[in-house]
Amino acid sequence: MSARVIDGKSFAAGLRARVATEVAAFKAATGVTPGLAVVLVGEDPASQVYVRNKGRETLAAGMASFEHRMAATTSQEQLLALIASLNTDDTVHGILVQLPLPKHIDEAAVLAAIDPAKDVDGFHVVNAGLLATGGQGLVPCTPLGCLMLLEDTLGDLSGLEAVVIGRSNIVGKPMAQLLLGKSCTVTIAHSRTRDLPSVVRRADIVVAAVGRPEMVKADWIKPGATVIDVGINRVPADEPGKTRLVGDVAYGEVSRVAGAVTPVPGGVGPMTIACLLLNTLTAAQARHG
Amino acid sequence: MSARVIDGKSFAAGLRARVATEVAAFKAATGVTPGLAVVLVGEDPASQVYVRNKGRETLAAGMASFEHRMAATTSQEQLLALIASLNTDDTVHGILVQLPLPKHIDEAAVLAAIDPAKDVDGFHVVNAGLLATGGQGLVPCTPLGCLMLLEDTLGDLSGLEAVVIGRSNIVGKPMAQLLLGKSCTVTIAHSRTRDLPSVVRRADIVVAAVGRPEMVKADWIKPGATVIDVGINRVPADEPGKTRLVGDVAYGEVSRVAGAVTPVPGGVGPMTIACLLLNTLTAAQARHG
Repeated sequence: MSARVIDGKSFAAGLRARVATEVAAFKAATGVTPGLAVVLVGEDPASQVYVRNKGRETLAAGMASFEHRMAATTSQEQLLALIASLNTDDTVHGILVQLPLPKHIDEAAVLAAIDPAKDVDGFHVVNAGLLATGGQGLVPCTPLGCLMLLEDTLGDLSGLEAVVIGRSNIVGKPMAQLLLGKSCTVTIAHSRTRDLPSVVRRADIVVAAVGRPEMVKADWIKPGATVIDVGINRVPADEPGKTRLVGDVAYGEVSRVAGAVTPVPGGVGPMTIACLLLNTLTAAQARHG
Repeated sequence: MSARVIDGKSFAAGLRARVATEVAAFKAATGVTPGLAVVLVGEDPASQVYVRNKGRETLAAGMASFEHRMAATTSQEQLLALIASLNTDDTVHGILVQLPLPKHIDEAAVLAAIDPAKDVDGFHVVNAGLLATGGQGLVPCTPLGCLMLLEDTLGDLSGLEAVVIGRSNIVGKPMAQLLLGKSCTVTIAHSRTRDLPSVVRRADIVVAAVGRPEMVKADWIKPGATVIDVGINRVPADEPGKTRLVGDVAYGEVSRVAGAVTPVPGGVGPMTIACLLLNTLTAAQARHG
Protein backbone atom coordinates (compact mmCIF):
# COMPACT_ATOMS: atom_id res chain seq x y z
CA MET A 1 0.00 0.00 0.00
CA SER A 2 1.27 3.46 -0.78
CA ALA A 3 0.34 6.63 1.08
CA ARG A 4 -1.68 9.36 -0.53
CA VAL A 5 0.68 12.21 -1.39
CA ILE A 6 -0.53 15.47 0.14
CA ASP A 7 0.08 17.95 -2.64
CA GLY A 8 0.92 21.13 -0.78
CA LYS A 9 2.05 22.86 -3.93
CA SER A 10 -1.36 22.43 -5.52
CA PHE A 11 -3.25 23.27 -2.32
CA ALA A 12 -1.15 26.41 -1.86
CA ALA A 13 -1.90 27.49 -5.44
CA GLY A 14 -5.61 27.11 -4.71
CA LEU A 15 -5.26 29.06 -1.47
CA ARG A 16 -3.38 31.86 -3.21
CA ALA A 17 -6.16 32.01 -5.80
CA ARG A 18 -8.81 32.19 -3.06
CA VAL A 19 -6.84 34.96 -1.34
CA ALA A 20 -6.60 36.86 -4.65
CA THR A 21 -10.37 36.60 -5.12
CA GLU A 22 -10.98 37.88 -1.60
CA VAL A 23 -8.43 40.66 -2.04
CA ALA A 24 -10.27 41.82 -5.14
CA ALA A 25 -13.58 41.81 -3.26
CA PHE A 26 -12.00 43.63 -0.32
CA LYS A 27 -10.55 46.32 -2.60
CA ALA A 28 -13.90 46.75 -4.32
CA ALA A 29 -15.73 47.05 -1.00
CA THR A 30 -13.30 49.31 0.86
CA GLY A 31 -11.12 51.01 -1.73
CA VAL A 32 -8.15 49.78 0.31
CA THR A 33 -5.33 47.64 -1.10
CA PRO A 34 -3.88 45.26 1.50
CA GLY A 35 -0.15 45.91 1.83
CA LEU A 36 2.71 43.76 3.07
CA ALA A 37 6.04 45.29 4.08
CA VAL A 38 9.02 42.93 4.14
CA VAL A 39 12.20 44.07 5.86
CA LEU A 40 15.50 42.47 4.95
CA VAL A 41 18.67 43.40 6.81
CA GLY A 42 21.91 42.26 5.21
CA GLU A 43 22.77 40.16 2.18
CA ASP A 44 21.99 36.56 3.17
CA PRO A 45 21.41 34.83 -0.20
CA ALA A 46 18.65 32.49 1.00
CA SER A 47 16.83 35.40 2.64
CA GLN A 48 17.09 37.41 -0.56
CA VAL A 49 15.39 34.58 -2.46
CA TYR A 50 12.62 34.31 0.15
CA VAL A 51 12.02 38.06 0.13
CA ARG A 52 11.89 38.17 -3.67
CA ASN A 53 9.38 35.28 -3.74
CA LYS A 54 7.23 36.90 -1.08
CA GLY A 55 7.17 40.16 -3.00
CA ARG A 56 6.23 38.44 -6.24
CA GLU A 57 3.44 36.41 -4.65
CA THR A 58 2.11 39.44 -2.81
CA LEU A 59 1.73 41.34 -6.06
CA ALA A 60 0.24 38.29 -7.79
CA ALA A 61 -2.48 38.20 -5.13
CA GLY A 62 -3.40 41.81 -5.91
CA MET A 63 -1.82 43.26 -2.79
CA ALA A 64 0.80 45.97 -2.42
CA SER A 65 4.35 44.87 -1.65
CA PHE A 66 6.87 47.10 0.10
CA GLU A 67 10.44 45.86 0.32
CA HIS A 68 12.82 47.53 2.73
CA ARG A 69 16.42 46.42 2.26
CA MET A 70 18.88 47.63 4.84
CA ALA A 71 22.65 47.16 5.03
CA ALA A 72 24.07 44.47 7.31
CA THR A 73 25.59 47.30 9.34
CA THR A 74 22.16 48.79 10.15
CA SER A 75 21.84 49.54 13.85
CA GLN A 76 19.05 48.18 15.99
CA GLU A 77 17.83 51.74 16.50
CA GLN A 78 17.56 52.31 12.76
CA LEU A 79 15.62 49.08 12.32
CA LEU A 80 13.30 49.93 15.23
CA ALA A 81 12.71 53.36 13.71
CA LEU A 82 11.67 51.76 10.41
CA ILE A 83 9.29 49.42 12.23
CA ALA A 84 7.79 52.32 14.16
CA SER A 85 7.09 54.11 10.89
CA LEU A 86 5.58 50.96 9.31
CA ASN A 87 3.39 50.51 12.39
CA THR A 88 1.79 53.89 11.75
CA ASP A 89 1.70 53.61 7.94
CA ASP A 90 -1.94 53.11 6.88
CA THR A 91 -0.93 51.49 3.58
CA VAL A 92 0.88 48.70 5.45
CA HIS A 93 -1.30 45.94 6.95
CA GLY A 94 1.38 43.33 7.46
CA ILE A 95 5.00 43.65 8.54
CA LEU A 96 7.47 40.83 8.18
CA VAL A 97 11.07 41.10 9.32
CA GLN A 98 13.06 38.43 7.52
CA LEU A 99 15.05 36.30 9.96
CA PRO A 100 17.82 35.71 10.82
CA LEU A 101 18.95 39.24 11.66
CA PRO A 102 22.63 40.20 11.97
CA LYS A 103 24.06 39.17 15.32
CA HIS A 104 24.36 42.70 16.71
CA ILE A 105 20.55 43.10 16.59
CA ASP A 106 18.28 41.68 19.29
CA GLU A 107 15.67 39.70 17.36
CA ALA A 108 13.27 39.50 20.28
CA ALA A 109 13.30 43.28 20.71
CA VAL A 110 12.64 43.78 17.02
CA LEU A 111 9.75 41.30 16.88
CA ALA A 112 8.26 42.84 20.04
CA ALA A 113 8.26 46.26 18.35
CA ILE A 114 5.90 45.18 15.56
CA ASP A 115 2.26 46.15 16.09
CA PRO A 116 0.59 42.79 16.94
CA ALA A 117 -2.23 43.69 14.53
CA LYS A 118 0.35 43.83 11.69
CA ASP A 119 2.41 40.85 12.88
CA VAL A 120 1.68 38.56 9.93
CA ASP A 121 4.38 36.12 11.05
CA GLY A 122 2.40 35.58 14.27
CA PHE A 123 5.58 35.67 16.38
CA HIS A 124 4.63 38.57 18.68
CA VAL A 125 4.02 37.59 22.30
CA VAL A 126 0.47 38.99 22.11
CA ASN A 127 -0.35 36.73 19.16
CA ALA A 128 1.28 33.77 20.93
CA GLY A 129 -0.90 34.56 23.95
CA LEU A 130 -4.05 34.86 21.87
CA LEU A 131 -3.32 31.50 20.28
CA ALA A 132 -2.60 29.96 23.68
CA THR A 133 -5.87 31.22 25.16
CA GLY A 134 -8.19 30.62 22.23
CA GLY A 135 -8.40 34.27 21.19
CA GLN A 136 -8.41 35.77 17.70
CA GLY A 137 -4.90 36.70 16.64
CA LEU A 138 -2.50 36.21 13.76
CA VAL A 139 -1.20 32.64 13.65
CA PRO A 140 2.32 31.62 12.52
CA CYS A 141 2.23 30.74 8.82
CA THR A 142 3.88 27.32 8.77
CA PRO A 143 1.71 25.61 11.42
CA LEU A 144 -1.36 27.33 9.95
CA GLY A 145 -0.50 25.80 6.59
CA CYS A 146 0.02 22.38 8.18
CA LEU A 147 -3.39 22.60 9.81
CA MET A 148 -5.04 23.42 6.50
CA LEU A 149 -3.41 20.42 4.83
CA LEU A 150 -4.54 18.20 7.71
CA GLU A 151 -8.14 19.39 7.57
CA ASP A 152 -8.16 19.04 3.79
CA THR A 153 -6.88 15.47 4.15
CA LEU A 154 -8.84 14.28 7.18
CA GLY A 155 -11.84 16.56 7.61
CA ASP A 156 -12.80 16.88 11.29
CA LEU A 157 -9.74 16.32 13.50
CA SER A 158 -11.66 16.06 16.78
CA GLY A 159 -10.53 13.21 19.00
CA LEU A 160 -7.57 12.21 16.87
CA GLU A 161 -4.22 11.53 18.52
CA ALA A 162 -1.66 14.05 17.29
CA VAL A 163 2.05 13.98 18.04
CA VAL A 164 4.10 17.08 17.28
CA ILE A 165 7.84 16.42 17.19
CA GLY A 166 9.69 19.62 18.03
CA ARG A 167 8.85 22.44 20.42
CA SER A 168 10.02 25.59 18.64
CA ASN A 169 8.08 28.82 19.08
CA ILE A 170 7.76 29.09 15.29
CA VAL A 171 6.34 25.66 14.49
CA GLY A 172 6.03 23.01 17.22
CA LYS A 173 4.36 24.95 20.00
CA PRO A 174 1.84 26.88 17.85
CA MET A 175 1.11 23.66 15.92
CA ALA A 176 0.21 21.96 19.19
CA GLN A 177 -2.10 24.85 20.11
CA LEU A 178 -3.85 24.71 16.74
CA LEU A 179 -4.38 20.94 16.98
CA LEU A 180 -5.68 21.32 20.54
CA GLY A 181 -8.06 23.97 19.25
CA LYS A 182 -9.38 21.35 16.83
CA SER A 183 -9.88 18.97 19.78
CA CYS A 184 -7.07 16.56 19.00
CA THR A 185 -5.42 14.79 21.91
CA VAL A 186 -2.05 16.47 21.50
CA THR A 187 1.38 15.26 22.58
CA ILE A 188 4.47 17.44 22.19
CA ALA A 189 7.62 15.36 21.85
CA HIS A 190 11.17 16.67 21.55
CA SER A 191 14.84 15.90 21.99
CA ARG A 192 14.35 14.86 25.63
CA THR A 193 11.49 12.48 24.90
CA ARG A 194 12.24 8.89 25.91
CA ASP A 195 11.50 6.27 23.26
CA LEU A 196 10.35 8.73 20.64
CA PRO A 197 9.44 5.95 18.15
CA SER A 198 6.85 4.50 20.50
CA VAL A 199 5.42 7.94 21.26
CA VAL A 200 5.07 8.66 17.52
CA ARG A 201 3.49 5.24 16.93
CA ARG A 202 0.44 6.33 18.94
CA ALA A 203 -0.35 9.08 16.51
CA ASP A 204 -3.13 9.40 13.96
CA ILE A 205 -1.41 12.67 13.00
CA VAL A 206 2.36 13.19 13.06
CA VAL A 207 3.87 16.63 12.53
CA ALA A 208 7.67 16.50 12.31
CA ALA A 209 9.47 19.81 12.84
CA VAL A 210 12.90 19.04 14.15
CA GLY A 211 15.35 19.84 11.35
CA ARG A 212 17.00 16.40 11.30
CA PRO A 213 17.13 14.79 7.85
CA GLU A 214 14.92 11.71 7.48
CA MET A 215 14.80 11.07 11.22
CA VAL A 216 11.25 9.70 11.31
CA LYS A 217 11.29 6.10 10.10
CA ALA A 218 8.61 3.80 8.76
CA ASP A 219 8.45 1.71 11.93
CA TRP A 220 7.62 4.85 13.95
CA ILE A 221 4.37 5.29 12.02
CA LYS A 222 1.03 3.72 12.85
CA PRO A 223 -0.32 2.21 9.62
CA GLY A 224 -2.67 4.68 7.99
CA ALA A 225 -1.48 7.72 9.93
CA THR A 226 -1.22 11.16 8.33
CA VAL A 227 2.32 12.53 8.33
CA ILE A 228 3.17 16.22 7.89
CA ASP A 229 6.83 16.91 7.27
CA VAL A 230 7.92 20.46 8.10
CA GLY A 231 11.63 19.78 7.75
CA ILE A 232 13.66 21.19 4.85
CA ASN A 233 17.18 19.81 5.07
CA ARG A 234 19.87 20.04 2.42
CA VAL A 235 21.93 16.85 2.19
CA PRO A 236 24.56 15.52 -0.23
CA ALA A 237 23.05 13.98 -3.36
CA ASP A 238 24.28 10.77 -4.98
CA GLU A 239 26.09 12.76 -7.61
CA PRO A 240 29.33 14.16 -6.15
CA GLY A 241 29.19 17.85 -5.31
CA LYS A 242 25.42 18.03 -5.65
CA THR A 243 22.84 18.42 -2.90
CA ARG A 244 19.17 17.64 -2.56
CA LEU A 245 16.37 18.60 -0.17
CA VAL A 246 14.89 16.09 2.26
CA GLY A 247 12.46 16.45 5.11
CA ASP A 248 12.53 15.21 8.69
CA VAL A 249 10.67 12.11 7.51
CA ALA A 250 12.21 9.18 5.60
CA TYR A 251 9.70 9.73 2.83
CA GLY A 252 10.26 6.59 0.78
CA GLU A 253 9.79 4.07 3.54
CA VAL A 254 7.19 6.09 5.48
CA SER A 255 4.99 6.40 2.39
CA ARG A 256 4.63 2.61 2.43
CA VAL A 257 3.08 2.71 5.95
CA ALA A 258 1.34 6.07 6.31
CA GLY A 259 -2.13 6.81 5.00
CA ALA A 260 -1.06 10.21 3.69
CA VAL A 261 2.21 12.13 3.74
CA THR A 262 3.57 15.47 2.57
CA PRO A 263 6.56 15.36 0.22
CA VAL A 264 9.64 17.58 0.49
CA PRO A 265 9.76 19.73 -1.54
CA GLY A 266 6.17 20.42 -2.56
CA GLY A 267 4.43 19.73 0.75
CA VAL A 268 4.42 22.19 3.63
CA GLY A 269 6.91 24.60 2.04
CA PRO A 270 4.57 26.26 -0.47
CA MET A 271 1.93 26.70 2.24
CA THR A 272 4.05 29.13 4.26
CA ILE A 273 4.00 31.99 1.74
CA ALA A 274 0.35 31.29 0.88
CA CYS A 275 -0.53 31.63 4.58
CA LEU A 276 1.52 34.81 4.78
CA LEU A 277 -0.71 36.27 2.06
CA LEU A 278 -3.77 35.03 3.92
CA ASN A 279 -2.55 36.63 7.16
CA THR A 280 -1.96 39.93 5.35
CA LEU A 281 -5.51 39.86 4.03
CA THR A 282 -6.81 38.90 7.49
CA ALA A 283 -4.93 41.84 9.05
CA ALA A 284 -6.34 44.24 6.45
CA GLN A 285 -9.86 42.90 6.99
CA ALA A 286 -9.52 43.26 10.76
CA ARG A 287 -8.46 46.87 10.32
CA HIS A 288 -11.08 47.86 7.74
CA GLY A 289 -14.15 46.26 8.74
CA MET B 1 1.50 -0.50 48.58
CA SER B 2 0.17 2.93 49.40
CA ALA B 3 1.08 6.13 47.62
CA ARG B 4 3.09 8.82 49.30
CA VAL B 5 0.73 11.65 50.23
CA ILE B 6 1.93 14.95 48.76
CA ASP B 7 1.29 17.37 51.59
CA GLY B 8 0.45 20.58 49.80
CA LYS B 9 -0.68 22.24 53.00
CA SER B 10 2.71 21.77 54.58
CA PHE B 11 4.61 22.69 51.39
CA ALA B 12 2.50 25.84 51.00
CA ALA B 13 3.25 26.83 54.60
CA GLY B 14 6.95 26.48 53.87
CA LEU B 15 6.61 28.50 50.66
CA ARG B 16 4.73 31.26 52.48
CA ALA B 17 7.51 31.35 55.07
CA ARG B 18 10.15 31.61 52.33
CA VAL B 19 8.18 34.42 50.68
CA ALA B 20 7.95 36.23 54.01
CA THR B 21 11.71 35.97 54.48
CA GLU B 22 12.32 37.33 50.99
CA VAL B 23 9.78 40.09 51.49
CA ALA B 24 11.63 41.20 54.63
CA ALA B 25 14.94 41.23 52.74
CA PHE B 26 13.34 43.12 49.84
CA LYS B 27 11.90 45.75 52.17
CA ALA B 28 15.25 46.14 53.92
CA ALA B 29 17.07 46.53 50.60
CA THR B 30 14.65 48.83 48.79
CA GLY B 31 12.46 50.46 51.41
CA VAL B 32 9.49 49.27 49.35
CA THR B 33 6.68 47.09 50.70
CA PRO B 34 5.22 44.76 48.05
CA GLY B 35 1.49 45.42 47.74
CA LEU B 36 -1.37 43.29 46.46
CA ALA B 37 -4.70 44.85 45.47
CA VAL B 38 -7.67 42.50 45.37
CA VAL B 39 -10.86 43.67 43.68
CA LEU B 40 -14.17 42.06 44.57
CA VAL B 41 -17.34 43.02 42.73
CA GLY B 42 -20.57 41.82 44.31
CA GLU B 43 -21.41 39.66 47.28
CA ASP B 44 -20.64 36.10 46.20
CA PRO B 45 -20.07 34.29 49.54
CA ALA B 46 -17.32 31.99 48.30
CA SER B 47 -15.50 34.92 46.70
CA GLN B 48 -15.74 36.86 49.96
CA VAL B 49 -14.05 33.98 51.80
CA TYR B 50 -11.27 33.78 49.19
CA VAL B 51 -10.67 37.53 49.29
CA ARG B 52 -10.54 37.55 53.09
CA ASN B 53 -8.04 34.66 53.07
CA LYS B 54 -5.89 36.34 50.46
CA GLY B 55 -5.83 39.57 52.46
CA ARG B 56 -4.87 37.75 55.67
CA GLU B 57 -2.08 35.76 54.02
CA THR B 58 -0.75 38.84 52.24
CA LEU B 59 -0.38 40.67 55.54
CA ALA B 60 1.11 37.58 57.19
CA ALA B 61 3.83 37.55 54.52
CA GLY B 62 4.74 41.14 55.40
CA MET B 63 3.18 42.66 52.30
CA ALA B 64 0.54 45.39 52.00
CA SER B 65 -3.00 44.29 51.20
CA PHE B 66 -5.52 46.57 49.50
CA GLU B 67 -9.09 45.34 49.27
CA HIS B 68 -11.48 47.06 46.89
CA ARG B 69 -15.07 45.93 47.34
CA MET B 70 -17.54 47.19 44.79
CA ALA B 71 -21.31 46.73 44.58
CA ALA B 72 -22.74 44.09 42.24
CA THR B 73 -24.26 46.98 40.27
CA THR B 74 -20.83 48.47 39.50
CA SER B 75 -20.50 49.31 35.82
CA GLN B 76 -17.71 47.99 33.67
CA GLU B 77 -16.49 51.56 33.21
CA GLN B 78 -16.22 52.05 36.97
CA LEU B 79 -14.28 48.81 37.33
CA LEU B 80 -11.96 49.72 34.45
CA ALA B 81 -11.37 53.13 36.03
CA LEU B 82 -10.33 51.44 39.28
CA ILE B 83 -7.95 49.15 37.42
CA ALA B 84 -6.45 52.11 35.56
CA SER B 85 -5.75 53.80 38.87
CA LEU B 86 -4.25 50.63 40.36
CA ASN B 87 -2.05 50.24 37.27
CA THR B 88 -0.44 53.61 37.99
CA ASP B 89 -0.35 53.23 41.81
CA ASP B 90 3.28 52.71 42.85
CA THR B 91 2.27 51.03 46.11
CA VAL B 92 0.46 48.29 44.17
CA HIS B 93 2.64 45.56 42.62
CA GLY B 94 -0.03 42.95 42.07
CA ILE B 95 -3.66 43.31 40.98
CA LEU B 96 -6.14 40.47 41.29
CA VAL B 97 -9.74 40.77 40.15
CA GLN B 98 -11.73 38.06 41.90
CA LEU B 99 -13.72 35.97 39.41
CA PRO B 100 -16.50 35.41 38.54
CA LEU B 101 -17.63 38.97 37.79
CA PRO B 102 -21.30 39.94 37.50
CA LYS B 103 -22.73 38.96 34.13
CA HIS B 104 -23.04 42.53 32.82
CA ILE B 105 -19.24 42.92 32.95
CA ASP B 106 -16.97 41.56 30.20
CA GLU B 107 -14.36 39.53 32.09
CA ALA B 108 -11.96 39.40 29.16
CA ALA B 109 -11.99 43.19 28.80
CA VAL B 110 -11.32 43.61 32.51
CA LEU B 111 -8.43 41.13 32.60
CA ALA B 112 -6.95 42.74 29.47
CA ALA B 113 -6.95 46.12 31.23
CA ILE B 114 -4.59 44.98 33.99
CA ASP B 115 -0.94 45.97 33.48
CA PRO B 116 0.73 42.62 32.57
CA ALA B 117 3.56 43.47 34.98
CA LYS B 118 0.98 43.54 37.82
CA ASP B 119 -1.08 40.59 36.59
CA VAL B 120 -0.35 38.23 39.49
CA ASP B 121 -3.05 35.82 38.32
CA GLY B 122 -1.09 35.36 35.09
CA PHE B 123 -4.26 35.48 32.99
CA HIS B 124 -3.31 38.44 30.74
CA VAL B 125 -2.71 37.54 27.10
CA VAL B 126 0.84 38.93 27.32
CA ASN B 127 1.66 36.61 30.22
CA ALA B 128 0.04 33.69 28.38
CA GLY B 129 2.21 34.54 25.38
CA LEU B 130 5.37 34.81 27.46
CA LEU B 131 4.65 31.41 28.99
CA ALA B 132 3.93 29.94 25.55
CA THR B 133 7.20 31.24 24.11
CA GLY B 134 9.53 30.58 27.03
CA GLY B 135 9.72 34.22 28.13
CA GLN B 136 9.72 35.65 31.65
CA GLY B 137 6.21 36.53 32.73
CA LEU B 138 3.83 35.98 35.60
CA VAL B 139 2.52 32.40 35.64
CA PRO B 140 -0.98 31.35 36.75
CA CYS B 141 -0.89 30.39 40.43
CA THR B 142 -2.52 26.96 40.40
CA PRO B 143 -0.35 25.33 37.72
CA LEU B 144 2.72 27.02 39.21
CA GLY B 145 1.85 25.41 42.54
CA CYS B 146 1.35 22.03 40.88
CA LEU B 147 4.76 22.29 39.25
CA MET B 148 6.40 23.06 42.59
CA LEU B 149 4.79 20.00 44.18
CA LEU B 150 5.92 17.84 41.25
CA GLU B 151 9.52 19.05 41.43
CA ASP B 152 9.53 18.61 45.20
CA THR B 153 8.26 15.05 44.78
CA LEU B 154 10.23 13.93 41.72
CA GLY B 155 13.22 16.24 41.33
CA ASP B 156 14.19 16.65 37.67
CA LEU B 157 11.13 16.12 35.45
CA SER B 158 13.04 15.94 32.16
CA GLY B 159 11.93 13.13 29.87
CA LEU B 160 8.96 12.07 31.99
CA GLU B 161 5.62 11.42 30.31
CA ALA B 162 3.04 13.90 31.61
CA VAL B 163 -0.66 13.83 30.85
CA VAL B 164 -2.71 16.91 31.68
CA ILE B 165 -6.45 16.23 31.75
CA GLY B 166 -8.32 19.44 30.98
CA ARG B 167 -7.49 22.32 28.66
CA SER B 168 -8.65 25.43 30.50
CA ASN B 169 -6.72 28.67 30.13
CA ILE B 170 -6.40 28.86 33.91
CA VAL B 171 -4.98 25.42 34.65
CA GLY B 172 -4.66 22.84 31.87
CA LYS B 173 -3.01 24.84 29.12
CA PRO B 174 -0.49 26.72 31.30
CA MET B 175 0.24 23.48 33.17
CA ALA B 176 1.16 21.84 29.86
CA GLN B 177 3.45 24.76 29.01
CA LEU B 178 5.21 24.54 32.37
CA LEU B 179 5.75 20.79 32.05
CA LEU B 180 7.05 21.26 28.51
CA GLY B 181 9.42 23.90 29.86
CA LYS B 182 10.74 21.23 32.23
CA SER B 183 11.25 18.91 29.22
CA CYS B 184 8.46 16.46 29.94
CA THR B 185 6.80 14.74 27.01
CA VAL B 186 3.42 16.41 27.44
CA THR B 187 0.00 15.22 26.35
CA ILE B 188 -3.09 17.38 26.78
CA ALA B 189 -6.24 15.27 27.08
CA HIS B 190 -9.79 16.56 27.40
CA SER B 191 -13.45 15.77 26.94
CA ARG B 192 -12.97 14.83 23.28
CA THR B 193 -10.10 12.45 23.97
CA ARG B 194 -10.82 8.89 22.87
CA ASP B 195 -10.10 6.19 25.47
CA LEU B 196 -8.96 8.61 28.15
CA PRO B 197 -8.03 5.78 30.57
CA SER B 198 -5.43 4.39 28.19
CA VAL B 199 -4.00 7.85 27.51
CA VAL B 200 -3.67 8.49 31.25
CA ARG B 201 -2.07 5.07 31.78
CA ARG B 202 0.98 6.22 29.79
CA ALA B 203 1.77 8.91 32.28
CA ASP B 204 4.52 9.18 34.83
CA ILE B 205 2.81 12.42 35.86
CA VAL B 206 -0.96 12.94 35.81
CA VAL B 207 -2.49 16.36 36.41
CA ALA B 208 -6.28 16.21 36.64
CA ALA B 209 -8.09 19.53 36.17
CA VAL B 210 -11.54 18.78 34.85
CA GLY B 211 -13.99 19.51 37.66
CA ARG B 212 -15.61 16.07 37.64
CA PRO B 213 -15.76 14.36 41.05
CA GLU B 214 -13.52 11.28 41.35
CA MET B 215 -13.40 10.73 37.60
CA VAL B 216 -9.84 9.38 37.48
CA LYS B 217 -9.89 5.75 38.62
CA ALA B 218 -7.17 3.43 39.91
CA ASP B 219 -7.03 1.40 36.71
CA TRP B 220 -6.20 4.59 34.76
CA ILE B 221 -2.96 5.01 36.68
CA LYS B 222 0.38 3.47 35.82
CA PRO B 223 1.74 1.90 39.01
CA GLY B 224 4.09 4.34 40.70
CA ALA B 225 2.88 7.43 38.81
CA THR B 226 2.63 10.82 40.50
CA VAL B 227 -0.93 12.18 40.53
CA ILE B 228 -1.78 15.86 41.03
CA ASP B 229 -5.45 16.52 41.68
CA VAL B 230 -6.54 20.09 40.91
CA GLY B 231 -10.27 19.38 41.28
CA ILE B 232 -12.29 20.72 44.18
CA ASN B 233 -15.82 19.34 43.93
CA ARG B 234 -18.49 19.50 46.60
CA VAL B 235 -20.54 16.29 46.77
CA PRO B 236 -23.18 14.90 49.16
CA ALA B 237 -21.65 13.30 52.26
CA ASP B 238 -22.86 10.04 53.82
CA GLU B 239 -24.67 11.98 56.51
CA PRO B 240 -27.94 13.39 55.07
CA GLY B 241 -27.81 17.09 54.28
CA LYS B 242 -24.03 17.29 54.63
CA THR B 243 -21.47 17.74 51.89
CA ARG B 244 -17.79 16.98 51.53
CA LEU B 245 -14.99 18.00 49.15
CA VAL B 246 -13.52 15.55 46.68
CA GLY B 247 -11.09 16.00 43.83
CA ASP B 248 -11.15 14.83 40.22
CA VAL B 249 -9.28 11.71 41.34
CA ALA B 250 -10.79 8.72 43.17
CA TYR B 251 -8.29 9.22 45.96
CA GLY B 252 -8.84 6.05 47.95
CA GLU B 253 -8.36 3.59 45.13
CA VAL B 254 -5.76 5.66 43.24
CA SER B 255 -3.58 5.91 46.32
CA ARG B 256 -3.20 2.11 46.22
CA VAL B 257 -1.65 2.30 42.71
CA ALA B 258 0.08 5.67 42.40
CA GLY B 259 3.54 6.41 43.73
CA ALA B 260 2.46 9.77 45.11
CA VAL B 261 -0.82 11.67 45.11
CA THR B 262 -2.18 14.99 46.35
CA PRO B 263 -5.17 14.80 48.70
CA VAL B 264 -8.26 17.02 48.47
CA PRO B 265 -8.36 19.14 50.53
CA GLY B 266 -4.79 19.80 51.57
CA GLY B 267 -3.06 19.21 48.24
CA VAL B 268 -3.05 21.72 45.42
CA GLY B 269 -5.55 24.08 47.06
CA PRO B 270 -3.22 25.70 49.59
CA MET B 271 -0.57 26.22 46.91
CA THR B 272 -2.70 28.68 44.96
CA ILE B 273 -2.65 31.49 47.53
CA ALA B 274 0.99 30.78 48.36
CA CYS B 275 1.87 31.20 44.69
CA LEU B 276 -0.19 34.39 44.55
CA LEU B 277 2.04 35.79 47.30
CA LEU B 278 5.11 34.58 45.42
CA ASN B 279 3.89 36.25 42.21
CA THR B 280 3.30 39.52 44.07
CA LEU B 281 6.84 39.41 45.40
CA THR B 282 8.14 38.53 41.91
CA ALA B 283 6.27 41.50 40.43
CA ALA B 284 7.67 43.85 43.08
CA GLN B 285 11.20 42.53 42.51
CA ALA B 286 10.84 42.97 38.75
CA ARG B 287 9.81 46.57 39.28
CA HIS B 288 12.42 47.50 41.88
CA GLY B 289 15.52 45.90 40.92
